[in-house]
Amino acid sequence: MNSLLLYKYQAMKNKPLILVTNDDGISAPGLRTLIKVMNTIGEVVVVAPDSPQSGMGHAITINSTLRCTKVDLDGGPQKEYACSGTPADCVKLGVHELLDRKPDLCVSGINHGSNAAINVIYSGTMSGAIEAGIEGIPAIGFSLLDYRWDADFDQITSYVEEIVRNALSHGIPEGVVLNVNFPKKPKSDIKGVKICRQAKAYWIEEFDKRKDPQGKEYYWLTGEFINDDKGEDTDQWALDNGYVSVVPTQFDLTAHHHIQKLNTWSFSDD
Amino acid sequence: MNSLLLYKYQAMKNKPLILVTNDDGISAPGLRTLIKVMNTIGEVVVVAPDSPQSGMGHAITINSTLRCTKVDLDGGPQKEYACSGTPADCVKLGVHELLDRKPDLCVSGINHGSNAAINVIYSGTMSGAIEAGIEGIPAIGFSLLDYRWDADFDQITSYVEEIVRNALSHGIPEGVVLNVNFPKKPKSDIKGVKICRQAKAYWIEEFDKRKDPQGKEYYWLTGEFINDDKGEDTDQWALDNGYVSVVPTQFDLTAHHHIQKLNTWSFSDD
Repeated sequence: MNSLLLYKYQAMKNKPLILVTNDDGISAPGLRTLIKVMNTIGEVVVVAPDSPQSGMGHAITINSTLRCTKVDLDGGPQKEYACSGTPADCVKLGVHELLDRKPDLCVSGINHGSNAAINVIYSGTMSGAIEAGIEGIPAIGFSLLDYRWDADFDQITSYVEEIVRNALSHGIPEGVVLNVNFPKKPKSDIKGVKICRQAKAYWIEEFDKRKDPQGKEYYWLTGEFINDDKGEDTDQWALDNGYVSVVPTQFDLTAHHHIQKLNTWSFSDD
Repeated sequence: MNSLLLYKYQAMKNKPLILVTNDDGISAPGLRTLIKVMNTIGEVVVVAPDSPQSGMGHAITINSTLRCTKVDLDGGPQKEYACSGTPADCVKLGVHELLDRKPDLCVSGINHGSNAAINVIYSGTMSGAIEAGIEGIPAIGFSLLDYRWDADFDQITSYVEEIVRNALSHGIPEGVVLNVNFPKKPKSDIKGVKICRQAKAYWIEEFDKRKDPQGKEYYWLTGEFINDDKGEDTDQWALDNGYVSVVPTQFDLTAHHHIQKLNTWSFSDD
């Protein structure tokens, strides 16, 4: 029996338990789409922020309290909780307080906007997935390169489903979560899925300096995204060329290859 | 001329410009100590949060405005700004709005509490350093394993100075920032500096569920730190055994060694 058949056989016996979160908040269309797709695959529990948390990085709430309310937004079969915290808080609360067993998978998104390249590090969507990964739960973050609230998520649902079914049948390597980004293109123009590395791209920040009605200065962060990385194996290249990008993303941040070099530093106690 | 002498020669000509930030807020004793040490090495500009930002991970402020006020807290030679944002915001604002040239070094801390092992991913202190690293600035985050406001930072200043002087003379590899943690020990008991990898340790979360005066439930996040990693090359081992730990920490999160494995997944468009 091949692995996909084996998975299908097992899935008939026990539906996988899937924890769903995001950073755009519980009413975001991207999340609602992800819930719909996950309901076709498993038993779904949603724990999502009650308000948008974009740009929250891997924040957790330690100096304040968390609120969590059971909600029903669309009458679907999923259980749903709206939480006052960040995506990482939602995952912690889901796993340690709300669920009665460890989920088989955690999915986060679908984010309204890119989490490719360096954006992964500022991403609340990915912090939800990474928190699950840290807890030993296979996890995937999904993002669509369309910031609009009414972005068309329907055309990528077949890809989301295929990626999730692959993850459930093959597993995701330990210490890794997947960062999946979709190009802003009609389904017929999407060329397929590419496993990639994170592009070495960056933001050139600018601050828009304004004065408030009292004449006091304040700033808005703005910026331009620059991709100088010419590699054709990057997520940004894949997205620019009509592919879905999948980057295996790790949360052990050690730069192992630099340990030896730093050992040449000298200290007075040596 | 060896590299340390060369550095000293150059430093006489132009003092290095050092950007200082933290996540415990501009009045935290750990930051005030770091400023004092940096004043002996270079020209210092402080851009630090006006209130504590612990557990903020790599958050940035994109849906709200930033305020920034020039302050003078101790009459020292440094320039200082208190900012309403996160450590990553402080670095962005410092580099792109407040400084007239790119700093030679960014230091963040000294944090009141550990950022060793998996804590690095939740760390506001390290997000300040990582933001600088992303911007191509050599950067170091410093943390002391003592959560108390009145922790004794004086006994680690000689180590801070030595590590910074090494970084200025040898440089820090591109794509890497340093995560430095100090054990909670008297200086005479500190055995030296170890270059380490991040320990594979984790938190077992627990939520303390309470009721507010209106009878509505809320949660406090608590937890226990577990280190199952028995390696003697980890930061946690070094700290437990009286060493200062230095971990080269990267912000390209790609798990390069897993790309090949994921290419065995099958998609209908293949």
